[in-house]
Amino acid sequence: MSLTHFDAAGQAHMVDVSDKADTDRIAVAAAHIRMLPETLALIQDGTAKKGDVMGIARLAGIMGAKKTADLIPLCHPLPITKVTVDLTPDPDLPGLRIEAMVKTTGKTGVEMEALTAASTAALTVYDMCKAVDRGMEIGGLHVRLKDGGKSGRYEAGTDQGA
Amino acid sequence: MSLTHFDAAGQAHMVDVSDKADTDRIAVAAAHIRMLPETLALIQDGTAKKGDVMGIARLAGIMGAKKTADLIPLCHPLPITKVTVDLTPDPDLPGLRIEAMVKTTGKTGVEMEALTAASTAALTVYDMCKAVDRGMEIGGLHVRLKDGGKSGRYEAGTDQGA
Amino acid sequence: MSLTHFDAAGQAHMVDVSDKADTDRIAVAAAHIRMLPETLALIQDGTAKKGDVMGIARLAGIMGAKKTADLIPLCHPLPITKVTVDLTPDPDLPGLRIEAMVKTTGKTGVEMEALTAASTAALTVYDMCKAVDRGMEIGGLHVRLKDGGKSGRYEAGTDQGA
Amino acid sequence: MSLTHFDAAGQAHMVDVSDKADTDRIAVAAAHIRMLPETLALIQDGTAKKGDVMGIARLAGIMGAKKTADLIPLCHPLPITKVTVDLTPDPDLPGLRIEAMVKTTGKTGVEMEALTAASTAALTVYDMCKAVDRGMEIGGLHVRLKDGGKSGRYEAGTDQGA
Amino acid sequence: MSLTHFDAAGQAHMVDVSDKADTDRIAVAAAHIRMLPETLALIQDGTAKKGDVMGIARLAGIMGAKKTADLIPLCHPLPITKVTVDLTPDPDLPGLRIEAMVKTTGKTGVEMEALTAASTAALTVYDMCKAVDRGMEIGGLHVRLKDGGKSGRYEAGTDQGA
Amino acid sequence: MSLTHFDAAGQAHMVDVSDKADTDRIAVAAAHIRMLPETLALIQDGTAKKGDVMGIARLAGIMGAKKTADLIPLCHPLPITKVTVDLTPDPDLPGLRIEAMVKTTGKTGVEMEALTAASTAALTVYDMCKAVDRGMEIGGLHVRLKDGGKSGRYEAGTDQGA
Repeated sequence: MSLTHFDAAGQAHMVDVSDKADTDRIAVAAAHIRMLPETLALIQDGTAKKGDVMGIARLAGIMGAKKTADLIPLCHPLPITKVTVDLTPDPDLPGLRIEAMVKTTGKTGVEMEALTAASTAALTVYDMCKAVDRGMEIGGLHVRLKDGGKSGRYEAGTDQGA
Repeated sequence: MSLTHFDAAGQAHMVDVSDKADTDRIAVAAAHIRMLPETLALIQDGTAKKGDVMGIARLAGIMGAKKTADLIPLCHPLPITKVTVDLTPDPDLPGLRIEAMVKTTGKTGVEMEALTAASTAALTVYDMCKAVDRGMEIGGLHVRLKDGGKSGRYEAGTDQGA
Repeated sequence: MSLTHFDAAGQAHMVDVSDKADTDRIAVAAAHIRMLPETLALIQDGTAKKGDVMGIARLAGIMGAKKTADLIPLCHPLPITKVTVDLTPDPDLPGLRIEAMVKTTGKTGVEMEALTAASTAALTVYDMCKAVDRGMEIGGLHVRLKDGGKSGRYEAGTDQGA
Repeated sequence: MSLTHFDAAGQAHMVDVSDKADTDRIAVAAAHIRMLPETLALIQDGTAKKGDVMGIARLAGIMGAKKTADLIPLCHPLPITKVTVDLTPDPDLPGLRIEAMVKTTGKTGVEMEALTAASTAALTVYDMCKAVDRGMEIGGLHVRLKDGGKSGRYEAGTDQGA
Repeated sequence: MSLTHFDAAGQAHMVDVSDKADTDRIAVAAAHIRMLPETLALIQDGTAKKGDVMGIARLAGIMGAKKTADLIPLCHPLPITKVTVDLTPDPDLPGLRIEAMVKTTGKTGVEMEALTAASTAALTVYDMCKAVDRGMEIGGLHVRLKDGGKSGRYEAGTDQGA
Repeated sequence: MSLTHFDAAGQAHMVDVSDKADTDRIAVAAAHIRMLPETLALIQDGTAKKGDVMGIARLAGIMGAKKTADLIPLCHPLPITKVTVDLTPDPDLPGLRIEAMVKTTGKTGVEMEALTAASTAALTVYDMCKAVDRGMEIGGLHVRLKDGGKSGRYEAGTDQGA
């Protein structure tokens, strides 16, 4: 077992995907951000009238997906064909559950794009609410689903993030 | 209680920091990434001879800190004066613990830069090891310390990330 | 009369601002986007329940301001301290009126940042509505106000954009 | 009639283009920038010997086209295959007329790239001449032609920008 | 003989590659950085225990390849499929020899990506060692090999860089 | 003697400059690009009527200086206050000699910005002329002058680039 991002001498490289076929690929990543119940109430209230935290985090996540190859050193640049980011209030956390889905037609998978979208959305929530709640915590960031390409379908057993 | 990133009408804006003093500021953020014991062994072994996952993640985290204002919509651009990112193997997770520290002399805090550095380092670990372990999970991303500026020192009680 | 972005030999350069003082500066730029009355109705309706075109354009404008030095070849990078972007429906255009305000404490003015913010917001409106109205037109993009710095206050006589 | 950048619940997303064919696409956008007659004379004179405003604006426009997906939140990244930007002095404005043409072989159109190129060229003219003429105004930014793809050819009736 | 980046009137444009086939392409570029023998010793020693200059320069080179279209005005954006950067100590320089290899499946060659990777790696070595050796010099940056595409295989006669 | 970009354990970090004073700093870097005499003739001819290679390379160099902190992993972001890039034909090379000058008022030097500007200008010349001359070679890239800051004035003895 060895890591593909290193050659035989242990030097980092961007893996050769020249010979891989352009296939339809999809990945879904999830995360959550835990906060005080009052902060969650403020966000839910805000969506209605005081400022749309979830809408801004959604947009930041979508834009973040497009920056993945710029952020992650050995990631291949990919022509993303679809991104969605969903944020759902969960009073049991309490906080927000985030799910990002990315599709491409290309030579490598898009799980890094999905993870980056979810992570950027979560960081944006932190930024917008930090003035009232510094103790928020982001967790449960993992790949929920990955499909397309030679290595086949992967689905995480259960939400390990809670 | 209201969110500073919205004006009275609930419209998002970049908060005015014109009148704030340029002071020395520091922030520390932490995160972890959980993985299979074999993956951790591969990373620890790799640092010695098969490829330096932790070194690459550290560098990605440092570079990520510089991209914060580009990633987070309402963040102010800041002249960062120092960044460190530390990754420590923890067999009890099992996985890596990540700590990022950022300093600036400026008008706003650098907790978003520290969080972005830690998050980018964790995502880079995922990218480099995903071929052998798709179930890795990133968590415990929070602000451990923030100091400088008018709002005073903040220190998280305990590591809430484990 | 000569252009400051060229030296005596006519070669482009980034103007020397080393000796200028760091002063508080502000600039306001305005623009509009004309569209079919049905498109405007869709936007106004959408804000309530079908998708927030104006909210997304506002955010794109704020983020665009931060990319000014990357877009405009001879612009100096500047530490922006505040950005607001307002979009107002105007049934007489019909369309949206856009106003962007940017502040900094620095050695050069921020009119390019304000213009870029207004322009990016307008382009984003076009992008979001182009599927229903390809004939939209962006106009009236000008500097409404500029203050701070040695050259003093400038205020446009009237809105020349209509 | 609804906006494609929002799902049924009104949430913004990057539209799915996975199933669209890779076809040859072209778009042409136009704009103008109005200025004092003396400013136009300076630009025309400058091209000969005092500094090439139009050459620099052309290059900024071409580079701006490559930044479109970074500027416009819900735009898909596209492999641009050709960009031209033309600036023509028009003493009747008085000012410059700008036309940008962009081609790609891809799954979505390039009208946003053409608009961004024209807009960036116009903003660059403003930047280079603002020291002598603050009252310049950018207008008439619209799509003149769009072809390729399922929705067929679109051609603007007349130049609505004058 | 004329330059392809200009049209018949001498105006710069991004060359039309729409009609070119997507073929497998490869390019190799080389460079060197000359330094004091003590600096080279420090780097070689450092790889073992004091800090991995060559590892960081390699990563910077790989990431630099992805920024080529952003740096070089008339370069087409390309979906890179592989990048490697090798740094080899050469006591006869004394200094490091750098070789970068880039592959793509696309419509234009990747020699600019390979040159940018080699150049960025060399600049990063300079940055990391400048505190102990300001007189380092980067040279011999040239294309060693280019293949794929209509213009056929090109191989530099000998290493002209020494 | 040790490298400042690594801590005591050999881990890379961005060096702490928090305690350094904001002083006026300047750096000058030089490089050259060697080519066939016919290529140089084409460039010199072109400036007059067939396309301005040197003008475009100059602009690319200026914009490249602004991207330095994005390209070089451990570089601090800096508010550049002036950039000039000069290209001079030298029939004895034959080719172009390039000199870049950068100024800032900040906590660290700008030699990396000057080197990046010179390097980007040289790469842009290569890009624009590669269709007629693949054997061009970039060399002699070094710091000619550095001043301001605690470490004092540095001037290279002679042009080591020829």
